[in-house]
Amino acid sequence: MTLKFNGKKPSRRAFLQGAATMGAGLTLGGQARAADPAIAVKPWMQELGDGVDTSPYGMPSEYEAHVKRRNVEWLTADTVSSINFTPLHELDGIITPNGLCFERHHAGVARLDPREYRLMINGLVDTPMVFTLEDLMRFPRENHVYFLECAANSGMEWRGAQLNGCQFTHGMIHNVMYTGVPLRLILEEAGVRTAGKWLLPEGADASAMTRSVPLEKAMDDCLVAFKMNGEALRPEQGYPVRLVVPGWEGNMWVKWLRRIEVGDQPWHHREETSKYTDLLADGSARRFTWEMDAKSVITSPSPQAPITHGKGHTVITGVAWSGRGTIPRVDVTLDGGINWHQARMSGPSLEKSMHRFYYEFDWDGSPLLLQSRAHDSTGYVQPTKDMLRKIRGENSIYHNNGIQTWAINAEGIAENVEIS
Amino acid sequence: MTLKFNGKKPSRRAFLQGAATMGAGLTLGGQARAADPAIAVKPWMQELGDGVDTSPYGMPSEYEAHVKRRNVEWLTADTVSSINFTPLHELDGIITPNGLCFERHHAGVARLDPREYRLMINGLVDTPMVFTLEDLMRFPRENHVYFLECAANSGMEWRGAQLNGCQFTHGMIHNVMYTGVPLRLILEEAGVRTAGKWLLPEGADASAMTRSVPLEKAMDDCLVAFKMNGEALRPEQGYPVRLVVPGWEGNMWVKWLRRIEVGDQPWHHREETSKYTDLLADGSARRFTWEMDAKSVITSPSPQAPITHGKGHTVITGVAWSGRGTIPRVDVTLDGGINWHQARMSGPSLEKSMHRFYYEFDWDGSPLLLQSRAHDSTGYVQPTKDMLRKIRGENSIYHNNGIQTWAINAEGIAENVEIS
Repeated sequence: MTLKFNGKKPSRRAFLQGAATMGAGLTLGGQARAADPAIAVKPWMQELGDGVDTSPYGMPSEYEAHVKRRNVEWLTADTVSSINFTPLHELDGIITPNGLCFERHHAGVARLDPREYRLMINGLVDTPMVFTLEDLMRFPRENHVYFLECAANSGMEWRGAQLNGCQFTHGMIHNVMYTGVPLRLILEEAGVRTAGKWLLPEGADASAMTRSVPLEKAMDDCLVAFKMNGEALRPEQGYPVRLVVPGWEGNMWVKWLRRIEVGDQPWHHREETSKYTDLLADGSARRFTWEMDAKSVITSPSPQAPITHGKGHTVITGVAWSGRGTIPRVDVTLDGGINWHQARMSGPSLEKSMHRFYYEFDWDGSPLLLQSRAHDSTGYVQPTKDMLRKIRGENSIYHNNGIQTWAINAEGIAENVEIS
Repeated sequence: MTLKFNGKKPSRRAFLQGAATMGAGLTLGGQARAADPAIAVKPWMQELGDGVDTSPYGMPSEYEAHVKRRNVEWLTADTVSSINFTPLHELDGIITPNGLCFERHHAGVARLDPREYRLMINGLVDTPMVFTLEDLMRFPRENHVYFLECAANSGMEWRGAQLNGCQFTHGMIHNVMYTGVPLRLILEEAGVRTAGKWLLPEGADASAMTRSVPLEKAMDDCLVAFKMNGEALRPEQGYPVRLVVPGWEGNMWVKWLRRIEVGDQPWHHREETSKYTDLLADGSARRFTWEMDAKSVITSPSPQAPITHGKGHTVITGVAWSGRGTIPRVDVTLDGGINWHQARMSGPSLEKSMHRFYYEFDWDGSPLLLQSRAHDSTGYVQPTKDMLRKIRGENSIYHNNGIQTWAINAEGIAENVEIS
């Protein structure tokens, strides 16, 4: 792969020619070296640091304390049924570290004792069964990187630009490697009866979260997962066991999974009637809109990550994903959609996983209207918000996968704006 | 992919037929349900849990406190120049979470202020240069998952079975996704002179770690990295910037990278003469043995992860890696190498990354001699320890990639043993 700035391979002197834009002192003759305080001897070069294993579990640098999940107090009446957001603007690559994964609970974080964990399979099965955690560990396991996106991600933006930062507009998503047992193997153990066409996974938290899942999806790629990024699930993510429903809305990925009932029709529970349906302009509602459509967002520059280095070489980066497959292509525009440029993808391209894109260019300091547009492996192209509103109106909270715009001013400050 | 137990597709009733081996009460008629204390109502189903964002950075469950990096007090005279070990026996998949990555320092953990961070390029270059962290962020970035293995990993085992647990025998390895700038781009910016053939990266800690790296490797795939698994490098891993030298021994991945000097020959510094060379039986030493040969280890069952469920369905799992490419195949033996079975690989197969393998079988309760054997994409096959000893003797500390044996007794207890 050849790396390119703004579509051209950079000249070897590209940075030097632009030295004025990068601050004095970037180029440095040997004779100037000793005089430059920037490369002077520092305390950490002269003193021994801490020894190994001063904490049982390694933590980020004290200088990264600002990199954290955030909630917004006004969003919900109580924190036990609320959300915090992944700091997408501070991350790179495609893996979300476990400590920074967004969370959404309906009755707070259940703290299960793994020794008391049980998973029951009942309903239209030949033999109702109960599994301990140790039983589950005796089934064959698989490993997959999947994004989990809340259906309400970007939901506030239906009515126009609301939240100033991609952490808040797009941060109800994370992307981790799961280890788990294919749900198919567990269902085959209990024996699904011919009449069995739907599943009702149920959570062991006080909300007893339930959703109707078609059997076909369960037999295809659902996992009963117990690890994320190699280690046990975090409590906020359903420790010790959650359901993984690849590419489908996060609400279906039942945490603290305690029971799966097999039935012949959907249950029409609260979370698929009153909630997680898309109210249209005519008063009807789209239902069972499970698959997450292709979507992307520029994570830097963005309102929480302004351009601070002035003109010259500038890296635009962001993430894209689709519930239907991979993302072979992302386009970026600097001028609100007049001209589109194909971005460079970097990192593994995996099914129903986040993808990372970059677009490098020489910024002349003039205002920009930044957007990204994802293409998925089915040929689907991410629409504008206006295109979505024409079809879905502005009543919905869920499934807003419209193109996001950041306006960058001459100082490099970014703002969430709407353009039409 | 079809999942198989012991080479055969499991029958739908496989677990039920083996119910006696899985404990009474696994199968459960609907009428027995209310009476089973295992699926009784639990406190976490009746009480609201904690709300979101009770901590700025999410942490593992309290029930996972035993999953931690560990050191051994007797290994080194001082913790500022010591090691702790990744808990491989507790992990699954291929990603090592940042909080559990092994660490090795030579003068403790340097705590750099990122605002004062500088990277100098000097020596045989057209223009010596100094970059701030912000400067580095203006270069094009790439994302790659790579293993980092200390050359001394398994070093204690040259003289026979020493340490009872794969965390200690094989835990000086981790596998994360790095985001960084190809070193090639930075060197092209300074302009390497024709005579420049070697690099000397230097760390900003008090050990001023230096290693000689051939220019060819630097131009191929080295990264100047600032993120691991999406977030900033951990202090123990070189925050804010480390060198990534894919597939090569960990000592060369200079942490807290402050300077790269270009020269016309290697420097023969301490870490490539007195240390990190392989002393042979005849008193001569192999030098510049950078590439890590293909290797594997069974992580469960293993001395720290015994079989606790008794006879019947049993999952063997482990990891494999090669500094020369991918791992298309791993074999597992239950009888110390008399019969080998091809393991099932699961998870992305990426260059110079860990791979995860599984082998599922029905254990009859008789003693086992478990081994795994990696094949890499060059055709190289992991050797026995005896084969290595014949060539390298027993003086070395480094580059032991021999096959590891765990003896499992009838109670499922695993022990580190040597067989010949």
